[in-house]
Amino acid sequence: MTYCVGILLRDGLVLAADTRTNAGVDYVSTFRKLTIFELPGDRFITLMGAGNLATTQSVVSLVSERLEQGTEENSLYRAPTMFNAARIVGNALREVLAFDGPHVRETKADPSASFIVGGQIAGRPVRLFQVYPAGNFIEATPDTPFVQIGETKYGKPILDRVVDYAMPLDRAAKAALVSFDSTMRSNLSVAPPLDLVIYRRDSFRAHKHMEIAGDDEYFSALRKRYGEGLARVFDRLPNPEIDL
Amino acid sequence: MTYCVGILLRDGLVLAADTRTNAGVDYVSTFRKLTIFELPGDRFITLMGAGNLATTQSVVSLVSERLEQGTEENSLYRAPTMFNAARIVGNALREVLAFDGPHVRETKADPSASFIVGGQIAGRPVRLFQVYPAGNFIEATPDTPFVQIGETKYGKPILDRVVDYAMPLDRAAKAALVSFDSTMRSNLSVAPPLDLVIYRRDSFRAHKHMEIAGDDEYFSALRKRYGEGLARVFDRLPNPEIDL
Repeated sequence: MTYCVGILLRDGLVLAADTRTNAGVDYVSTFRKLTIFELPGDRFITLMGAGNLATTQSVVSLVSERLEQGTEENSLYRAPTMFNAARIVGNALREVLAFDGPHVRETKADPSASFIVGGQIAGRPVRLFQVYPAGNFIEATPDTPFVQIGETKYGKPILDRVVDYAMPLDRAAKAALVSFDSTMRSNLSVAPPLDLVIYRRDSFRAHKHMEIAGDDEYFSALRKRYGEGLARVFDRLPNPEIDL
Repeated sequence: MTYCVGILLRDGLVLAADTRTNAGVDYVSTFRKLTIFELPGDRFITLMGAGNLATTQSVVSLVSERLEQGTEENSLYRAPTMFNAARIVGNALREVLAFDGPHVRETKADPSASFIVGGQIAGRPVRLFQVYPAGNFIEATPDTPFVQIGETKYGKPILDRVVDYAMPLDRAAKAALVSFDSTMRSNLSVAPPLDLVIYRRDSFRAHKHMEIAGDDEYFSALRKRYGEGLARVFDRLPNPEIDL
């Protein structure tokens, strides 16, 4: 199972993905679900994928092959806007599904996939999109600043409570990690290592790209303290008055 | 959308359901999703349903009609054990789906439904089951003491953290309500009033049956204090060290 989250911020982007893939019961592997496309000084684009692994990997391969030789219509290096970048990913997804989809469905497997596309092209704003399995997409806004794909629900309540477009990048990274903590507790197939990328507006490169292992000191302490803090809050809430 | 949760406890049961039903965009109603079957001194059985409303209501109707005249095989008043009670609900569900399912699917609607069945029959232990759309079921245990149906994921992390078979009934009721709070924040179509039932072991009647309105004083205070407490815990967690 996969969980990926992207947060749009005044100061940039925070993007996080787990790396665990399970294809069948006794075959659990880790794969990169987060890919970065950088042209220093010109553009920074990240892609995260969830769903059928063959589909997501094929989309990343198609998009990667067309970077140098492609056109404005199919190369992330030549897309004039982030809107076009999201459309390129959606089109690549449609292309893969047209090619592989019917064959995958014959085996009763689900070929579908979804993506998060975030980044910035020089002279333009930072933008963040969620690409649906149909290849269409929605965009994060200051009012609704985060998007999620994969196993999204367990980690959404904490984001709903604390995420805010104006929060600093480090605080947003903390929010993403706490969201992963909730997800990992409720779905054991979402697991470290996690990929965490911090993008600072107008820098056109990853400000920080961390691989966070399960025994990472900061992440372990965060999980422990959050769990203890939550338990304390729950303890101190009054019980309903039920004459027992 | 529906959310129902049942918690199995050493001291009894806590059961909670929202009452909001939405059938189409501009048609939102509230219906009872929690039904109690009591035979004072002999048995206490509750049924909560999620999914297609026509299906869940038909199941409750079928089960209700057979209470007095039915047999051990189809009457909740005559079932010798809670296992049989769960099977009666599963069979009624299969019966309704056999009758209505093909017609509903013709309209591209989903006829499926699931149930939580909990209770106690005199001389036997308190038991709690989750009935799947196929009519088969799983049982809660002291190690896995809660079951959920409907919009289950947003409210699961807090239950994973705090629910414990040995906790008192009032504390478990508090946990159920906090779980509803998280669900209601992330999915606006789960909404009050909530039905909350507390069952004390060996009492064979609802110890407490509360309808909790959106402006209920206790519930409002609980939601506010939980939200504030959680925000405080999050604030106090250290941010990752990212040189910004």
